[in-house]
Amino acid sequence: MEDPDVPPQFRATNADYKDSGYDRGHLAPASHHKHSQEAMDQTFFLTNISPQVGTGFNRDYWARFEKFSRDLIDKWDDVYICTGPLWVPEKGEDGKYYVKYEVIGEPPKVSVPTHFFKVILATNQRNLEGSPKSDATHHIGAFILPNQRINSSVPLESFSVPLETVEDLSGLTFFNLLPRYSDSPATTSAVAVQSPKALVPQALCSSTECTLPPVNFWKVPKAKKELLLKEVDQFEQSGAEQKMLPCTLTAAERKLIHDAAEKKGLKHVTLEEKGKRCIQLAK
Amino acid sequence: MEDPDVPPQFRATNADYKDSGYDRGHLAPASHHKHSQEAMDQTFFLTNISPQVGTGFNRDYWARFEKFSRDLIDKWDDVYICTGPLWVPEKGEDGKYYVKYEVIGEPPKVSVPTHFFKVILATNQRNLEGSPKSDATHHIGAFILPNQRINSSVPLESFSVPLETVEDLSGLTFFNLLPRYSDSPATTSAVAVQSPKALVPQALCSSTECTLPPVNFWKVPKAKKELLLKEVDQFEQSGAEQKMLPCTLTAAERKLIHDAAEKKGLKHVTLEEKGKRCIQLAK
Repeated sequence: MEDPDVPPQFRATNADYKDSGYDRGHLAPASHHKHSQEAMDQTFFLTNISPQVGTGFNRDYWARFEKFSRDLIDKWDDVYICTGPLWVPEKGEDGKYYVKYEVIGEPPKVSVPTHFFKVILATNQRNLEGSPKSDATHHIGAFILPNQRINSSVPLESFSVPLETVEDLSGLTFFNLLPRYSDSPATTSAVAVQSPKALVPQALCSSTECTLPPVNFWKVPKAKKELLLKEVDQFEQSGAEQKMLPCTLTAAERKLIHDAAEKKGLKHVTLEEKGKRCIQLAK
Repeated sequence: MEDPDVPPQFRATNADYKDSGYDRGHLAPASHHKHSQEAMDQTFFLTNISPQVGTGFNRDYWARFEKFSRDLIDKWDDVYICTGPLWVPEKGEDGKYYVKYEVIGEPPKVSVPTHFFKVILATNQRNLEGSPKSDATHHIGAFILPNQRINSSVPLESFSVPLETVEDLSGLTFFNLLPRYSDSPATTSAVAVQSPKALVPQALCSSTECTLPPVNFWKVPKAKKELLLKEVDQFEQSGAEQKMLPCTLTAAERKLIHDAAEKKGLKHVTLEEKGKRCIQLAK
C-alpha cells in the first residue's frame, strides 16, 4: 500500500515490485502488531517494506527468524525489536570496499538492501506497568542476515554480531541509555563501574536458546492434522462438557483446531499461562 | 576538519581520506562564503566534504564549474546554489539497474559519490532587500556531473538535466514554492495559468551563457604576469597620483596586482560597478 506521507515522486508503488523477482518484505511484521488495528494497518505501507529475496529468505529463513523474535515474548516481559535494511560494503578483487545493490522500478527507484538487521532487547522489566524489579536483567541480540537464500540448517547465531556493527552500518544508535555489554569494545571500565549491574545487557543468545522454529512451522503436517481433527470430532461425539488439549501445540495447530471447533459450533478458547498456550474446548 | 555535531562513531575523519586516492571535495566552496568567517569556517567541516576525483575533476572541471556558479552573481541580484552528492543507478549487462560505489576509510565508512549535482537559482529579484520588481525573472539550472575525470572541452550544458531528475535521484525538492518551467512535465496548465508569469523560472542556460571559465583560470600566464607587474612598476616610477587598470582582469590577475602594490607600499583598491571589477592604484 502506498504511503501517502511520502511525496508522490519519491513514493514506492506496487508496480515497482511487479516482475522484479523480489517479495515485498515487511520490516515490522503485521503479526507482531495484532494489538492495534491501526498499527497493523500501518505495517502494510510500502515505507515498512523492502525488496526481499522470496524463496529461501522472506518465505523461509527470515519468516522463521521473525517467529523466533515474536516468541521471545513468551519468556520475557518486554521485547523490543528494531528491524531495518542495510547496504553493506564488500571487499572487491582490487582490495577496495564497494557497495553494490540493485534498484527496482521503472524508472529505478526502490533500492534492494544487501542485508537486513534485527536488534532485539528482551527484558524481565516491564517499563510501563508494575514497579521496577530488583532482579531486572536486559538481553540484547544484534543480527545481520544477507538478503539471499539461506540454507535452513544454518544456525541463527552465525548471524549474531556486536551491536556496534549494526550501528556503524546503519548510522543508528540503539538503546543508548543502557550501558553496553561488559565484553563490548565500547564499554569502558568507568561505565561498568557506574552502572547498576542489572542494567548492563547480556548477550541474548547466552540467556536464551537462539534456535529457530522448524522449517515450515506455519504448516501442519498431514498426519498431525488428521490426528487433531479427530480429537475435535471425538470430543463433539463424547458426553464430556469440556476438554483441554495438549499445551504443546504450535500456533498453526491451534489455529486448525479453532477453525474446526468454530465450524462445529463448539466453544473454543486459548488459555495462556507462563508462556504456554492450551486450547480448551467446550459445548 | 571533523564535525563535532556528528557522533564520533559515525564521523568522517581526515584519516579516512588518507591514501584513498580521492580529494576532500568541498560541496559549499569556501570561496563562496567570504561574507562571514563563521560560514567560511563551516565549509571546512568534513560534513561539507565528499570524496572527489582530484585530477580532471575537483582540481579542474569542477573548480571551473564552481567559479562559473560564483560569477553568476555578477549578472544577477541573487544566486542560490545547492550542491550535493548522488549515487546514480546504471544499467548493468543483465538489463537491471545497479548502484555501485566505493567506500573509503578503515573500516570503510565514507561513501564515494558516483555523481555530484548543482541546482542553481538566479534571479534579478533580491528577496531580502528592496521592493519587489515588476520585471522579476527566475532562472533555474540543474546539473549532474560524474565524479570522474572530465575532458576540459566538454560543454557544461551537456550536464544540464531537468530539475526533476536531480529531485528523483536525491530525494530532495528544490524551490518548490516556485512554479515549474513551462516545458517541464511537472507543470500543469493550472499552475501555469495561476502563477504570475514572472515567477515561472526559465532555463538558466537559455538566459545566461553557460560557458565555463578557461582551464587553469586561477593561474596567470607568465607573459601576462610580467606585463601586469611592469604596469605597477611604471606607475610607481611615474609622476601620476593614481591610475586605473583595465576592468577586464581576472580575479587571479587582480590578486597579482594587489599583492605587488602592497609590497611597494602603494594604495590599491578594487572598484566594482555593474559586475565589472577595476583596480585603482594610488600613491
